[in-house]
Amino acid sequence: MPVRSSTPHSVRELQLADWIQTLDQSSLREIHAALLRPGVLSLALGMPDPRLFPSAALCRAAVAVLEDDRNALQYELPFEPLKRHVVALMKYRGVCCSEDQVFLTAGAQQGIELLVRLLLDAPRPVLLESVVYDGIQLAVSPFGSRRLVVPTDPETGIDVGAVERLLGTGVRPALMYVIPDGHNPLGARIPMEARAKLMELASRYGVPVIEDDAYGFLQYENALPSIRSLSPEWGFYVGSFSKILAPGLRVGWLVVPARLVPKLSILKQLSDIDVSCFTQRLVARYLDSTDFLEHIAFLRREYAARRNSMIGALREHLPNVARWRRPHAGFFVWAELPHGTDARKFLQFAAATEAVAFVPGDGFSVCGDVYARRCIRLNFSSNPPEHIRAGVIRLGRALRKWVLVRENRTESAPDSIQAPPV
Amino acid sequence: MPVRSSTPHSVRELQLADWIQTLDQSSLREIHAALLRPGVLSLALGMPDPRLFPSAALCRAAVAVLEDDRNALQYELPFEPLKRHVVALMKYRGVCCSEDQVFLTAGAQQGIELLVRLLLDAPRPVLLESVVYDGIQLAVSPFGSRRLVVPTDPETGIDVGAVERLLGTGVRPALMYVIPDGHNPLGARIPMEARAKLMELASRYGVPVIEDDAYGFLQYENALPSIRSLSPEWGFYVGSFSKILAPGLRVGWLVVPARLVPKLSILKQLSDIDVSCFTQRLVARYLDSTDFLEHIAFLRREYAARRNSMIGALREHLPNVARWRRPHAGFFVWAELPHGTDARKFLQFAAATEAVAFVPGDGFSVCGDVYARRCIRLNFSSNPPEHIRAGVIRLGRALRKWVLVRENRTESAPDSIQAPPV
Repeated sequence: MPVRSSTPHSVRELQLADWIQTLDQSSLREIHAALLRPGVLSLALGMPDPRLFPSAALCRAAVAVLEDDRNALQYELPFEPLKRHVVALMKYRGVCCSEDQVFLTAGAQQGIELLVRLLLDAPRPVLLESVVYDGIQLAVSPFGSRRLVVPTDPETGIDVGAVERLLGTGVRPALMYVIPDGHNPLGARIPMEARAKLMELASRYGVPVIEDDAYGFLQYENALPSIRSLSPEWGFYVGSFSKILAPGLRVGWLVVPARLVPKLSILKQLSDIDVSCFTQRLVARYLDSTDFLEHIAFLRREYAARRNSMIGALREHLPNVARWRRPHAGFFVWAELPHGTDARKFLQFAAATEAVAFVPGDGFSVCGDVYARRCIRLNFSSNPPEHIRAGVIRLGRALRKWVLVRENRTESAPDSIQAPPV
Repeated sequence: MPVRSSTPHSVRELQLADWIQTLDQSSLREIHAALLRPGVLSLALGMPDPRLFPSAALCRAAVAVLEDDRNALQYELPFEPLKRHVVALMKYRGVCCSEDQVFLTAGAQQGIELLVRLLLDAPRPVLLESVVYDGIQLAVSPFGSRRLVVPTDPETGIDVGAVERLLGTGVRPALMYVIPDGHNPLGARIPMEARAKLMELASRYGVPVIEDDAYGFLQYENALPSIRSLSPEWGFYVGSFSKILAPGLRVGWLVVPARLVPKLSILKQLSDIDVSCFTQRLVARYLDSTDFLEHIAFLRREYAARRNSMIGALREHLPNVARWRRPHAGFFVWAELPHGTDARKFLQFAAATEAVAFVPGDGFSVCGDVYARRCIRLNFSSNPPEHIRAGVIRLGRALRKWVLVRENRTESAPDSIQAPPV
């Protein structure tokens, strides 16, 4: 009779948290593989253009901070002068706030994550639109929470009527997440009346709304105010210097009811103690020394020109094979490809045949719906207009070939590329 | 008959995550109140001395990075040259590793937190010693996990025999957390044989050990190697530039099995995307340009002198009223005050009567045991030797007064200070 070991083999295998083993990052790997192809022109990643960073001014600010302020490299309390700059900036989003409502973060993603952890307990559901920034989906994934999904529209964003019907059933989500301006990935913006309705619902039903305003300062015409301006009690504002200054500094902020700041401080302390003292001071010093609104206006002009270049090229080169809308803000155009297209397969095809890359839509889909699978996200912020134009020309060629291959139901797809579905 | 509202008032109150409402931060508030008293000499916070930061070299590195490398301000992949520096540094902790086992973090606390989230599911317990760094206690608090607590010793740290007995009962914690060198707050170090035994147990029972080595490079004599050198499979190493370079940069690292790095990347992405690209490059450039081991040796000499100053002053000024040990590493001396002392009350008394501050021990106690309540943590890193000496003299005067007041059972305690228990 075999002796039963007191430490069976299974006991000695490393166990990880359950949820982390269920995450599928295969689409990210596919995108990175596509980007690594030689000569690829990327319309994929959602990054600002480093050529537009005020590097020289930031360098002067860094030197000034390090020469003047020994505590710039120490552990310190959140930097009050930076909070004052944020309060001043928020006026341009229609928000009146005070320093004690501002909480500094390491960028918008950390702001979102801290709010999720502040508001969410595992058993409570969260309310999301059906296609939305994958960062919020990742942030809620450790909780295993039920996702209450409402439809969204590439022009007007989250379906506020659907939100009303859902909340009317008595369900009470721990939070809603919205991107009122420059929606990632849709490029949508929520119309003014829908914003008002949404915040009325939030207040009526007591549902905090996380407002991701990473692109709110980059509205190219007829700017609308932040939804926090409509409800300082239920609108939890997430801001960031990543898109309007430089993401490599990792500085962002929240605007929330002041009574929540001590709770957020605990969360921040357990996460990473504090935002880099040095980069807080660097940003504040830069803001002291510059007309930041003029810099933002410069970025708006630059990015609007790139958006126009992309929309113009799409009109010229993809007129009958794709649908898109002209975004009012942000970095992205969302394009719908012909019914039946699998955008992940098309990415591999386009990267291999025309050396162009983008992000397939299904990575943003909350519940894997069919619609997003045939859509793609195109970025227009990272490249100058002429590159964008060249990228869209490649995309158009790739798409026409793809459609042709599919229509001919041939097996003549290039080597190593899986043929489109027949 | 009253009409029942469809949205009762309670529905409109903001609900926060349960666990965050149970955290008691009153001791922190008391410490901060004590520190704000005019003229207070602080032996409280655990900070390095900014006078010892290589500020000029860091400033040169910042300028070089910003002038040479446009991507320093962009979103970027973890910076490989910094990983190479970490691999080289780890040799001095007895650890052979490769770049693919190094994961960059925003300081040690984030490293700890990411490992906790990687390893811990709510239903599984964690193994902690009874008095330990509050940062690990905070990091596990959102999970509501059961804490398996083993005794600890101010000289030799976690009781490895107790760990063995506990694991022998069949319980299987998701993780253990230890500080082998320069224990915060005890100043303890785990002897070599106990390290070997601990890692043998970790491997036998399959329990990952988070090794917080924030102070491992600051061992003042007879340095011992990291426990990861004893078990690369079960020792999860947490390192940081905070104590050996500057905390305001928020750069640290993990050394873990390479297969876990992609999982940690997901956690990092959902937490805050990445470590500041700029500070990663700044640290790497500084390390390129300097003899960092010479800098660390300089810090060791400086901090050892401060430790000696504190121990000498304690011998001279608190000989019969307190007990302490001479730490081999780190920033702290742990002192036991007379039985019956409530260190939180004594802090208020000492701050009010002698303008000296420290951290009461109960903030580090995992299960509120009586022992830690009469202990205090004294920091010797933040101040030059003469300040440390002055602080200990004040502490001695305060403690003698306090004991006298208690022995006389008088009500003559100063105004607004609660009298010690009678």
